[in-house]
Amino acid sequence: MKITVIGGGSWATAIVKILSESNVQIKWWMRCAADVEHIKKHHHNPHYLSSVEVHPSKVKPYTNLKESLRGSDWVILAVPAAFVADALKSVSAVNLADKKIISAIKGMIPSTNQLVTDWLADNYEVSHHNMGIIAGPCHAEEVALEKQSYLTIASPNIELATEFAEIMRCRFVKTSVLGDIYGVEYAAVMKNIVALACGITHGLGGGDNFQAVMVANAMQEIKRVVDTIAPMERDLSASAYLGDLLVTAYSQFSRNRTFGNMIGRGYSVKAAQLEMNMIAEGYYAVKCIFEMMEKYTVDMPITDFAYQILYKNASLKKQFSILQDKLK
Amino acid sequence: MKITVIGGGSWATAIVKILSESNVQIKWWMRCAADVEHIKKHHHNPHYLSSVEVHPSKVKPYTNLKESLRGSDWVILAVPAAFVADALKSVSAVNLADKKIISAIKGMIPSTNQLVTDWLADNYEVSHHNMGIIAGPCHAEEVALEKQSYLTIASPNIELATEFAEIMRCRFVKTSVLGDIYGVEYAAVMKNIVALACGITHGLGGGDNFQAVMVANAMQEIKRVVDTIAPMERDLSASAYLGDLLVTAYSQFSRNRTFGNMIGRGYSVKAAQLEMNMIAEGYYAVKCIFEMMEKYTVDMPITDFAYQILYKNASLKKQFSILQDKLK
Repeated sequence: MKITVIGGGSWATAIVKILSESNVQIKWWMRCAADVEHIKKHHHNPHYLSSVEVHPSKVKPYTNLKESLRGSDWVILAVPAAFVADALKSVSAVNLADKKIISAIKGMIPSTNQLVTDWLADNYEVSHHNMGIIAGPCHAEEVALEKQSYLTIASPNIELATEFAEIMRCRFVKTSVLGDIYGVEYAAVMKNIVALACGITHGLGGGDNFQAVMVANAMQEIKRVVDTIAPMERDLSASAYLGDLLVTAYSQFSRNRTFGNMIGRGYSVKAAQLEMNMIAEGYYAVKCIFEMMEKYTVDMPITDFAYQILYKNASLKKQFSILQDKLK
Repeated sequence: MKITVIGGGSWATAIVKILSESNVQIKWWMRCAADVEHIKKHHHNPHYLSSVEVHPSKVKPYTNLKESLRGSDWVILAVPAAFVADALKSVSAVNLADKKIISAIKGMIPSTNQLVTDWLADNYEVSHHNMGIIAGPCHAEEVALEKQSYLTIASPNIELATEFAEIMRCRFVKTSVLGDIYGVEYAAVMKNIVALACGITHGLGGGDNFQAVMVANAMQEIKRVVDTIAPMERDLSASAYLGDLLVTAYSQFSRNRTFGNMIGRGYSVKAAQLEMNMIAEGYYAVKCIFEMMEKYTVDMPITDFAYQILYKNASLKKQFSILQDKLK
């Protein structure tokens, strides 16, 4: 069994570590040639989860994506949504044909407001039947420490999900499967909005009582959105939805929360971006979800709050007061 | 409008502060005469939330419970469940007749495995029609700081709930109402079990990923239990259920979590109790819920985990492993 992992960040590194527990061959593509050299020489990623040992007998790093894909049964995408098009630009549909594609990306393609799976279907002729996603709750840092974690593999093709769940199961990771790929993906996108909004309200002085109310209301908002755009019977208290929201909204290390907190404390988007040397995924997610939902009349107080502040330069104080009145 | 508040702890003090924002007369009973003298002289509770000013024009402290009840329209109970029988021993049904009773107690009467409202009905002839409860998520400490908080008043008598919600609403507290008194009470009891179990697993080395999975699974366990013992249509992602669970399970200051954490680190129940100088409510709740549910066949991995460890002296490591396998 050969698996290509695309991406050099912490989540990609965690996935490589999990896969290394199984009897599979891992081909690990990352953009930066110097990082590949470092891994070949020192057996760890120089920038992320550097305590994770990368076994040369199990893992072969690549800088040429086409080469890394050759002969692989599975491809795992683990780059930020905003960079996935760029990462794949050197390959075409034929290079992905007959492979099973797993997205570990939490976010939407900003230029088209699409889920990654839909974008792959449109641009690389990948059938949804050959696709799945990996959902948390799962901080990569805890995988590095071999802390007991749980992953959900979602796919409209339950057989594919089950097969991949088997591959990912190991000493410190338990896996389960769901058929609801859209619901899990949209919930994963929205949880970043919620974490960002939690950061903003924390920056504005909101306490633990307020955060608990906001996260409870967020579950209701997520339900309204996913039931509108992908209606089906689903239990949103499953780990892939509620658990994933919790691990992000309550994390002190969430980039979305940190970004939001700076905004709440009065930084401009630009200043927060400069300070963090990046823009958090939730920043794009707010615009994607807001625009995607414009044609419906779904009540989304938390998304609206973040959208007005991030994209309409609205008064923090006034938006906070509107949000407080809408929650219950 | 006259309101008697029974109890001298931090939650009672927070309620007195909230009520002081409204145009009501507050009669505040507490057991300890020295504390009453202190409040009369210094205008604050010497032991809890001592930054909260107790206005003498609004609040009259009492040590005689019967006297404090005379002429009151409302009675708010805010003592630990284990002490409510003792607190009320000097009064009888006649002293509570025609009053509307609000329980702010989260816990069950340990000797009879009863909810406080059912115990009041049995022992003081209070009709459920004249009763309501106050539900969080609400840390008393944040009320003292006037952080925006939300309370839910639940009662089978929606008119009573609405009236009391009006009284509690103030600058920093928003209120809403629910008809589901049993569901809210049982969920409030079970959240203490969850916080305790979160403490145990944290003490055993569980991380944020595990906690997120456990809290998501806890929502499913709470749903199974309340749907069995008090079936009705309810949305458990409302603040009174999910929000209340979150503020407790994710609090660093939760006594249940702290108690559990000591157990997880290897303290005996007795040693943890000595160290904390108290037993957390969740300790009794575990036994109450476990025994109450014995006649049903409801899957309760988290309650079972806590019960086996706290009451059956079971191996921490083995129980942790069983729990890990049951969650998903």
